[in-house]
Amino acid sequence: MRHLDLLSRLAQANTTKIVLLVLDGVGDLATPAQPLTALQKARTPHLDALAARSSLGRIVPVATGITPGSGPGHLALFGYDPREPQFDIGRGILEALGLGLDLHPGDVAARGNFATANAQGELTDRRAGRIPTAECVRVCEKLNCALEAITDANVRVVPGEAHRFVLLLSGEGLAAAIDDTDPQQLGVAPLAARETAPAGAQAAALVRRAVALMEGAIGDEPKANRVLLRGFSRLPDLPQLPELYKLRCGAFAGYPLYRGVASACGMEVVPCGKRLGEILDRVEERWPDFDLFFLHVKQTDQAGEDGNIDAKAAAIEEVDALLPRLLALGPDVVAVTGDHSTPAPMAAHSFHPVPLLMASAVAFVDETTAFDEHQAIRGHLGTFPSRELMGLLLAHAGRLEKFGA
Amino acid sequence: MRHLDLLSRLAQANTTKIVLLVLDGVGDLATPAQPLTALQKARTPHLDALAARSSLGRIVPVATGITPGSGPGHLALFGYDPREPQFDIGRGILEALGLGLDLHPGDVAARGNFATANAQGELTDRRAGRIPTAECVRVCEKLNCALEAITDANVRVVPGEAHRFVLLLSGEGLAAAIDDTDPQQLGVAPLAARETAPAGAQAAALVRRAVALMEGAIGDEPKANRVLLRGFSRLPDLPQLPELYKLRCGAFAGYPLYRGVASACGMEVVPCGKRLGEILDRVEERWPDFDLFFLHVKQTDQAGEDGNIDAKAAAIEEVDALLPRLLALGPDVVAVTGDHSTPAPMAAHSFHPVPLLMASAVAFVDETTAFDEHQAIRGHLGTFPSRELMGLLLAHAGRLEKFGA
Repeated sequence: MRHLDLLSRLAQANTTKIVLLVLDGVGDLATPAQPLTALQKARTPHLDALAARSSLGRIVPVATGITPGSGPGHLALFGYDPREPQFDIGRGILEALGLGLDLHPGDVAARGNFATANAQGELTDRRAGRIPTAECVRVCEKLNCALEAITDANVRVVPGEAHRFVLLLSGEGLAAAIDDTDPQQLGVAPLAARETAPAGAQAAALVRRAVALMEGAIGDEPKANRVLLRGFSRLPDLPQLPELYKLRCGAFAGYPLYRGVASACGMEVVPCGKRLGEILDRVEERWPDFDLFFLHVKQTDQAGEDGNIDAKAAAIEEVDALLPRLLALGPDVVAVTGDHSTPAPMAAHSFHPVPLLMASAVAFVDETTAFDEHQAIRGHLGTFPSRELMGLLLAHAGRLEKFGA
Repeated sequence: MRHLDLLSRLAQANTTKIVLLVLDGVGDLATPAQPLTALQKARTPHLDALAARSSLGRIVPVATGITPGSGPGHLALFGYDPREPQFDIGRGILEALGLGLDLHPGDVAARGNFATANAQGELTDRRAGRIPTAECVRVCEKLNCALEAITDANVRVVPGEAHRFVLLLSGEGLAAAIDDTDPQQLGVAPLAARETAPAGAQAAALVRRAVALMEGAIGDEPKANRVLLRGFSRLPDLPQLPELYKLRCGAFAGYPLYRGVASACGMEVVPCGKRLGEILDRVEERWPDFDLFFLHVKQTDQAGEDGNIDAKAAAIEEVDALLPRLLALGPDVVAVTGDHSTPAPMAAHSFHPVPLLMASAVAFVDETTAFDEHQAIRGHLGTFPSRELMGLLLAHAGRLEKFGA
């Protein structure tokens, strides 16, 4: 039996409240050049006091050595094994979620790039000279005008940053089994959309019609005169968290991608600002309405991606200063962790385990005294896959029945 | 390949002797209100001396966050993955084992409750006012007299405590695929026994005949005038330990449930008293006869269930005082652990990992100096699923061949 199914079988209702505070990319590296991690560098009296009466441990997002993207990183936190094909969030869908689009089951999304072709139709720049975002918005308007000629389905594009956009198809019976049209090389024409399985034939034909209309509309553009499409996908069919775990789930995230993933998992997305203070405003308002509160703090990851250890420590200090507000709500379980590590020395997501703090009346008070990567190694919770965290949250909240007699 | 099958493939005979000393529910919690666990609170010079020349570690009974019952907890210690359906011990069988009944493959057992119905046949008390055990014995005698009318199978009841009993069916071709007859509510009649799969039809018909005879015999009882049946089950088809591991296995347990589980796994059950001193009397007598000695101490769990940390520490001290007697026998491997944690602050089984001590000539002597939950975190053995313990015992006893060349 999958762990997810076992948890679902044992999940029982309770009145306890769980807060899962995700500091995106919080895990960092200690290196000879950077002897202190961001968690060590930050002054965190409240997190440390909480750690002193909590269990620490570490979670491994996907598997040993695997660096996760944001989608799989969060799916694992919610209990899904991101390696299972049915839980795979496609690139197109992730891009659409990242733009904050409202997706419906059955919608097909693809990542789009503008590209440049010469008079012979051969690609000369697969990124259309990275046109400015304002240019992208302008050209996307032309595409959408042209796409109005399609009346048997709803096809439109949504501009992203620079040369990027999302293509969205809505209609009856559209499968996402369509190959990329990006030939991944210059000097050739874009590929025609082809189904990768018979079920994709109808959608592939629709995409070919759409591409013809789009290229007709922008053929005279100097740079953005072709479109390349990749990662055709649909919303994964995720078992919904409220039913899985008998939990009313509220997502409090300031950035679209995390809202989108939470929504795809069945959480109610509560609109809120981007910083933890603004997020807590909404959490306080909605405290009676949920059992699980997913709070997402992005600034730790952004600083890590920038390779800026000081900014990352500052983001952690901002969280620390607000922790008393969160604890004043009286949650029964508080977990603080990340979806992955984004070590400043790497300026990227990484494969390193992520520190975890678990506070509850039945958390084993181990010998750790501060929340950082070093102490987490010695914590009571040990090191385990992120996908098992949800079960541990439920256990600490008295929300799992005994297994067998 | 399942771990169990790998172990079985590699198991080899040897003359070494292994003692698995299970202190039921020994794991405990450190909390702000109870800073010392039972293992820390107890004065345990012998266990600590053994720990100082042993490896420590922790075992996770079923999976992260899962609280096991006694059946799954012990199956895991013996190497079975309790999540596998074929290793599931049903409630009826567990209740029968707990009463010390001698079960045979193919027997079907159910948990029974006496209940009270009014003149209209509607349930008014699903527990028959929790009649005293002596009453239960008396009414069960009436049931057994009535059940003698069934001659094509052997059907009988065995009284338990208060309003509880076990119904046992023996005969050819009886499947346990029968639904509960307990409607789980008042104001309605008990449900008729129904098969949950075609294979259960014959047994369900037998149960309906038995229920009619029983209710005819007790219809005039003021309280215990109905029977409710739950958890129809048969002995699981467990690969037997002696064949699996090439081990002669002796079970030394003072309480029926643990004897029953050990017997279902193929161990020889040696009758003995309830306290470790009495258990060791039998172990000493039978020392030449077995390779694996499963010793079960119940008092730690009982004290934990009572929320009595002092009684739990006292139970551990009783074990500590007797440890020299056990070591004097010269076992090659001694493991001390539990089937699960029963923290006194929770007064119940819990999901927390269980400390493990492993002593043998090839145990890595780690830096731990006492047997408790904190030190176990830092031990050489790490934290791993209980179902892998048996392989580690065999390994420390030189009873596993090398895997591959």
